[in-house]
Amino acid sequence: MKYLRNMWALVLFLFGISLADEGMWTFDNPPKKQLKEKYGFDITQEWLDHVRMSSVRFNDGGSGSFVSSNGLVMTNHHVGLGQLQKMSKEGNDYVTTGFYAKTNAEEVQCIDLELNVLMAMQNVTDNVVEAIKGKTGGDAAKARRAVLAQLQKEIGEKTGMRADLVSLYNGAEYWIYSYKKFTDVRLVMAPEQQIAFYGGDADNFTFPRYDLDMCFFRVYENGKPFIPTHYLKWKTSGATDGELVFTSGHPGSTARQQTVAQIEYLRDYQLPFQLKNYKRRLEALRVYAAHGEEQQRRALSLIFGLENSQKAIGGQYGGLLDKNLMTKKMNEEKALRDNVNANPELQAQFGWAWDSIAAATERNKKMFNQLMYRGVTGLLAPRALTIARYATEMKKPNGERIAQFQDANLNATLVNLYSPAPIYIDFEEVQLIDRLKEAVEMLGLNDPWVVAVLEGRTPEEAARFLVNNTKMSDIAFRKSLIESGSDEILKSTDPMIAMALRIAPIGDEMRTWQNLNVNGTLTIATEATGKARFAVYAKELPPDANFTLRLSYGQVKGFPMNGTKAPCMTTMYGLYDRAFSFQNKDEFELPKRFNEGIGKLNLSTPMNFVTTNDIIGGNSGSPVVNANAEVVGLIFDGNIESLPGRFTFSEEKNRAVSVHTGVMIETMRKLYDANLLADELEGIASKPELKKETPAKQSKPAQKKKK
Amino acid sequence: MKYLRNMWALVLFLFGISLADEGMWTFDNPPKKQLKEKYGFDITQEWLDHVRMSSVRFNDGGSGSFVSSNGLVMTNHHVGLGQLQKMSKEGNDYVTTGFYAKTNAEEVQCIDLELNVLMAMQNVTDNVVEAIKGKTGGDAAKARRAVLAQLQKEIGEKTGMRADLVSLYNGAEYWIYSYKKFTDVRLVMAPEQQIAFYGGDADNFTFPRYDLDMCFFRVYENGKPFIPTHYLKWKTSGATDGELVFTSGHPGSTARQQTVAQIEYLRDYQLPFQLKNYKRRLEALRVYAAHGEEQQRRALSLIFGLENSQKAIGGQYGGLLDKNLMTKKMNEEKALRDNVNANPELQAQFGWAWDSIAAATERNKKMFNQLMYRGVTGLLAPRALTIARYATEMKKPNGERIAQFQDANLNATLVNLYSPAPIYIDFEEVQLIDRLKEAVEMLGLNDPWVVAVLEGRTPEEAARFLVNNTKMSDIAFRKSLIESGSDEILKSTDPMIAMALRIAPIGDEMRTWQNLNVNGTLTIATEATGKARFAVYAKELPPDANFTLRLSYGQVKGFPMNGTKAPCMTTMYGLYDRAFSFQNKDEFELPKRFNEGIGKLNLSTPMNFVTTNDIIGGNSGSPVVNANAEVVGLIFDGNIESLPGRFTFSEEKNRAVSVHTGVMIETMRKLYDANLLADELEGIASKPELKKETPAKQSKPAQKKKK
Repeated sequence: MKYLRNMWALVLFLFGISLADEGMWTFDNPPKKQLKEKYGFDITQEWLDHVRMSSVRFNDGGSGSFVSSNGLVMTNHHVGLGQLQKMSKEGNDYVTTGFYAKTNAEEVQCIDLELNVLMAMQNVTDNVVEAIKGKTGGDAAKARRAVLAQLQKEIGEKTGMRADLVSLYNGAEYWIYSYKKFTDVRLVMAPEQQIAFYGGDADNFTFPRYDLDMCFFRVYENGKPFIPTHYLKWKTSGATDGELVFTSGHPGSTARQQTVAQIEYLRDYQLPFQLKNYKRRLEALRVYAAHGEEQQRRALSLIFGLENSQKAIGGQYGGLLDKNLMTKKMNEEKALRDNVNANPELQAQFGWAWDSIAAATERNKKMFNQLMYRGVTGLLAPRALTIARYATEMKKPNGERIAQFQDANLNATLVNLYSPAPIYIDFEEVQLIDRLKEAVEMLGLNDPWVVAVLEGRTPEEAARFLVNNTKMSDIAFRKSLIESGSDEILKSTDPMIAMALRIAPIGDEMRTWQNLNVNGTLTIATEATGKARFAVYAKELPPDANFTLRLSYGQVKGFPMNGTKAPCMTTMYGLYDRAFSFQNKDEFELPKRFNEGIGKLNLSTPMNFVTTNDIIGGNSGSPVVNANAEVVGLIFDGNIESLPGRFTFSEEKNRAVSVHTGVMIETMRKLYDANLLADELEGIASKPELKKETPAKQSKPAQKKKK
Repeated sequence: MKYLRNMWALVLFLFGISLADEGMWTFDNPPKKQLKEKYGFDITQEWLDHVRMSSVRFNDGGSGSFVSSNGLVMTNHHVGLGQLQKMSKEGNDYVTTGFYAKTNAEEVQCIDLELNVLMAMQNVTDNVVEAIKGKTGGDAAKARRAVLAQLQKEIGEKTGMRADLVSLYNGAEYWIYSYKKFTDVRLVMAPEQQIAFYGGDADNFTFPRYDLDMCFFRVYENGKPFIPTHYLKWKTSGATDGELVFTSGHPGSTARQQTVAQIEYLRDYQLPFQLKNYKRRLEALRVYAAHGEEQQRRALSLIFGLENSQKAIGGQYGGLLDKNLMTKKMNEEKALRDNVNANPELQAQFGWAWDSIAAATERNKKMFNQLMYRGVTGLLAPRALTIARYATEMKKPNGERIAQFQDANLNATLVNLYSPAPIYIDFEEVQLIDRLKEAVEMLGLNDPWVVAVLEGRTPEEAARFLVNNTKMSDIAFRKSLIESGSDEILKSTDPMIAMALRIAPIGDEMRTWQNLNVNGTLTIATEATGKARFAVYAKELPPDANFTLRLSYGQVKGFPMNGTKAPCMTTMYGLYDRAFSFQNKDEFELPKRFNEGIGKLNLSTPMNFVTTNDIIGGNSGSPVVNANAEVVGLIFDGNIESLPGRFTFSEEKNRAVSVHTGVMIETMRKLYDANLLADELEGIASKPELKKETPAKQSKPAQKKKK
């Protein structure tokens, strides 16, 4: 161990790297040494367990935390937005007006939200090693899949919890994470989107910032508010400049341990494709949204999502065009490979892996257009494809199915398929037309997939025909198909299902090709680079993010910005400055409540703040806690300088952006008439009505999910 | 003409340049066409004359304007700062506390401030052409100098005004500018530097911004407030987003028409030298300032000046390291040279010039260190050098003297030499020690200049010896030396004068070498490039800035900034946000008046705003006027994106930063108890005491300058 540490110190020295607040750490391997050395903080197992079990995963891509003894969950408005939209209707638009339930009875049940809490983590790497002993190539991959599916099933059955398979360190470790899951989740409070997403796409991914990006839900179990064993205490005064803070959440994906060949592939193929795709989709959606308020409401979430992705991927792409970043990545890779090659044993085991990855990546480039442009979009066509695949996959044994149809995941797949969220035919049309036009432009009219979708029609004709003649909008129809079984599905004459059945084999063929020629190699070779990194640096580097629970640490700290300094926090004065600087218009228009209520507010209340914590998309909604595990803020963004963080972390300018606890309480009490919620957060003796355990007023028992 | 316009249109087309708000235009050649085409504005001669004669030059490097019928002049606090420091003493520090004279009697006279108003402009290019007809090389240069000195003298004597020689378009045009000059200037109002320079070096050259960088003087003539024939009317509501605005001021220097060879010289020699020099001087000054409050007060102006230069030059240097900028410059030069070479006549006349400049620049590089590091600093040593040079220069005929000793400039040279501004011996020591150490480090102990200064002493010993044993601190001594004449000066035994007499010939030798080998060539060759540009583009491009009066136009407009948008203006809410965001500390600490007076203010009052006007250092203090020639703001800075503007203008992000008229009136009335001044600006019937013509209370008639 000592040797390895010294080796790491040498690497740090060679590349002039000082100990930065880097890393999204798994809870089994927290950065104890760094916390002790840099901040004098001794992290305990008790602290870690408490924070872990207070943390909540929003399964559609965000994070949250328990913040009261009554099952109150805090997250971002933009994490809750999808649910807010689904529960909104014309004349009852919670996205625009905001929402506050004064009593439990007024809380509104979410339509298809699942929350998870990570209760246990089991390292099953040894089981995998045992299962693939003596096997190579496809046999090894098959054996690995089989043993993991088996373990996942066993553990899930034993614990009665959701059991997720987790691969860490590029596949050098395999774990089963067990989650307690909640499907009865009710909306308690949401501000107007206008203030939650204040500054819109312009201010997105930037700081200084003035957003009230918060949303509160309550978790129910058996019709009663859930009493969590762990929840985070609240601190309205927040954290001070320089203070040590942590975030506990679910970063979605980083690519820090990818090889230079993979990063070059992202730079030259994947990211330019994505940017082009976002651009054209946004154009189509904006045309649709311009037709009226209702159209705008329908398209809003997708538009925001795409604008967000466009800016995020644009920032990543910009990072990869920066020669310094690429040089750093090349130096890091060279250092690792030199270490591997200097040791004959390591060299023999892992030395081949980087070239192997490069070769697989080259092969993938040749099929890039087919892989990217052969796809459908919207809600109807992708669901039809799910049904078509269900028909063929369910005929296979569990271990050989693609992931979403394996026993452990099947239920989630069906919940999604049966979602009662509204489907708008004209909106489906617009999206599918654009997607098919793009496919024709990029693949040509003779591409077999294009032929199979269009059947001689134009993209417009085909999309209109499919969307207007399918019964897929009807949940009962989707259910009846699944319940009728594989053979009946294969005979379906519903045009959308028939189209899905025509293209599914082409997709299968591509997947088979990609598994054989690309993914198989990548799985084994990236696992080898992961093991090589283990052999050289042990677990002193955290694994890449993969939407599992991670702990990051850092401090409240401003940063050099555009020739001057960005402060570590903003105040409500700044919100009004930004509004009046832009004539209180467009994305800088304040909600009525804020215009009228200005006189009630203490404008020096801190609004947003920045910390050096290393986070990425998926961390949205993560609590920011201090050394006492008290909530001092709510992660909702990174600054523009943090976007290349997908590939490398820079403490100089990379900042996580949070809502301050102070502004949440100030606005609840002074603008939202939500003293009861503020009391609950601040732990002030709660009023009787908060204890009433009435069923949600608007919940529909018939639609309650049982998982 | 049509041909030339089409040619220019072609160039615009070729390089994808759209019509930007570019240019610092001379008042004889305003951008009429651009104003008409882009803004539909017909600029009249009356408008131009009115704005020109309302504009004021601060001879120590800034701009200003008449803003009342009673000789009130508006400029920046940082333009007035030198005077504020000179009139401050311990216990009476206007820089820190601010100043306001309620009556004329309370106004404080400036110690050595000269203001100029441009009354006439005379094109004397033909006279020069006539004088150098048939002459070449050194003879031509000599003849040019002689005729210009003669014209300058004649015109000055005829008009009784200050006559300045002005060379435009790289010497393709020569003008004599006649200025009415004012030397009795009195301080009316200055806010605390803390709010004038709010955000300090951090926020300097950036936007969004919250500075009250204003200062008001009153011009006197014959002991009475001067009644200007032209002054600008005031508009407290300022200008709106998108509105056309103008600035009229004195941009100091641009290098847009320099050749690529010259710009590369700046990039590789001049700017890196300057940045290194600023850094070490700042280190020395900060050590001195750390000794106490009084030392800090003494060093403040120099420190601010150097920090300002460091950021400005740093931004220029950054611009030159940008490949896009260099490519643009190379393309522009290639387009011009291609045009020249395509026309045999132009080719013969001017085709050689660029290579000639490149060769001269190469020669200069060889002497770079001697030219840069053989120099003294402070107030004593440079003045001793002035006296030593006076002794030798005054023996020559007027036309052969170096510029500062020619008849037209001699008075200004002597006013500067006799300045009664305080000299601090310990401060002189610190600066001279550092400068001599730098010379020893860069030139070595055997350099003849170093030998002549040190006479075997160490830099510390030499500086202490010279500073402590000279009588140069005494104005009377300096005067008596000059009055004793050349021969007596040459015999002086004052150690500082003796040192100056030893190094002056070495400087003369360098100057002679540089004139022969570099400057002579550069003068002729840059003139040739200027004439070539004329031949190709006529006067459709404005000449480089040279601290003469220029008009620039543009519009109130935000800009894309660090991933988001910067608004076109800020409000006073933002001032308080910035203060509280930084805990009201250090450069973000508010003056007491602003902390205590917050309740009195309308915080939505606009504070600073940005426009696309093309400006540069020297424009500080320029009025921003609307199409009706009403003052709507006060230029005080450019944004960080404007710094490469020395070399090229980019309308996308280059912005001029101004104080809004609204915040001036709001703070005068609500915080400074300066209703009378606000009334005078707003043209509200003035109170009797404003009309009282009492002599300045603190003025010392004996010291009044007569020029």
